[in-house]
Amino acid sequence: MDIVIIGTGNVAIVLGRKFRMAGHQIVQVAGRNVAAISSLAKEWETTCTDKWDLINASADIILIAVTDNAIEELALQLKAPDCVVVHTAAAVSKNVLENTTSHFGVFYPLQSLRKDLEHIPDIPVLYDGSDEMTNTLLKQLANSISTTPAAQAGDEVRLKLHVAAVIVSNFPNYLYTIAEEYCRKEELDFQQLLPLIEETAVRIRNISPGKVQTGPAIRHDNATIHKHLALLEKYPEIKKLYSFLSENIASNKIT
Amino acid sequence: MDIVIIGTGNVAIVLGRKFRMAGHQIVQVAGRNVAAISSLAKEWETTCTDKWDLINASADIILIAVTDNAIEELALQLKAPDCVVVHTAAAVSKNVLENTTSHFGVFYPLQSLRKDLEHIPDIPVLYDGSDEMTNTLLKQLANSISTTPAAQAGDEVRLKLHVAAVIVSNFPNYLYTIAEEYCRKEELDFQQLLPLIEETAVRIRNISPGKVQTGPAIRHDNATIHKHLALLEKYPEIKKLYSFLSENIASNKIT
Repeated sequence: MDIVIIGTGNVAIVLGRKFRMAGHQIVQVAGRNVAAISSLAKEWETTCTDKWDLINASADIILIAVTDNAIEELALQLKAPDCVVVHTAAAVSKNVLENTTSHFGVFYPLQSLRKDLEHIPDIPVLYDGSDEMTNTLLKQLANSISTTPAAQAGDEVRLKLHVAAVIVSNFPNYLYTIAEEYCRKEELDFQQLLPLIEETAVRIRNISPGKVQTGPAIRHDNATIHKHLALLEKYPEIKKLYSFLSENIASNKIT
Repeated sequence: MDIVIIGTGNVAIVLGRKFRMAGHQIVQVAGRNVAAISSLAKEWETTCTDKWDLINASADIILIAVTDNAIEELALQLKAPDCVVVHTAAAVSKNVLENTTSHFGVFYPLQSLRKDLEHIPDIPVLYDGSDEMTNTLLKQLANSISTTPAAQAGDEVRLKLHVAAVIVSNFPNYLYTIAEEYCRKEELDFQQLLPLIEETAVRIRNISPGKVQTGPAIRHDNATIHKHLALLEKYPEIKKLYSFLSENIASNKIT
């Protein structure tokens, strides 16, 4: 497919790379940052523009991968009546694009994308088109870049999965960050924890996380919990977090 | 090395398998549960006993892999003056073994071990011996089963790393459990989140987690946070957890 990408952030760049790896053409890169679009146009051997009225409206798809707040205003300025136009945001309705074209939708990558990492992970896609032709095209594009089958997900389902994504990605990453900081302050080697971190994440391909909950909280091992809290006396915020999560696990309130 | 393993839980079984894969001999399995020790003795082509006074005290190492609370009492009944005797607990001092032998220590696997999973992950080991001979032996055994170099860690350092292990493993697994439960109730496909979970864990081999914190909380994207909290209205405990962690991330109190 011939694709125009609007935006120069992580999502725009990683999706662009993935599209090219799957054999699609990036026919144009558009954005406000002239240095960034020039650099991407060079990487992708294509053209670029910083003017919305010069966007190539004969492409198969125009992908808007800009920050959530900027989508609606951009959509108002963009006219591409014969093009499929999609944005990539979880928490923005597809309807913000309804005046831009008659074929609009969402192409949401359910993955954490970083342009500065060499490897590109598998990217499950949730798509939602305004009509059957658009849905067919988005599904085809999604399945060309991912081994996880693409799923159609309307605004509400997409937002619900976004909540789950925050819980399984942003929150664990925050816990890794706290642990790294704690190790730095205590002069411990955070690297020694990496196999444990990976195993905890990878094994749930084969077993439900609810079946492998371990640790002092689920065992109601208060002796160990008290030893841990004593060590965290110096770090009141970590201590609060440790207590909060341990109490949740022990009381089994949620699951 | 010739190794006696006491215990029939996850740690005993997975370490036993790993020892055998590294070319060591399990010369005996000991435990209270006769069915469990018989089954393991068969798997490992060795002998077993449920009597502490029949434990083979001519082995190179006796590894006590029983629940934390049971170690001290077991140690009082065990006499193996010519053997290296170690336990595998993070939060128990090595000194509980000082009357069992003159060569005692700890062999703590910094990993979440499950006998019911086919793959065995890499197992970094923290060891601590009562004397130089014991340290040399434990280090050698540890490095024979892991690609992560073994590190010596006394009682306090081991306990500190255990705190970090709880934060990066038990807590994220709890978040996965909540998300799975939420997906089940909302009829969403939890499997679609697995690539995201893995990427979040695996990428920190190459980049510090503090540099890749994303999501609505760190962006102070209150519009999205409010949409998420509205969806969680039905799940007050998840809502409380979401708010607590989001406020921590947003206020950057810890890191």
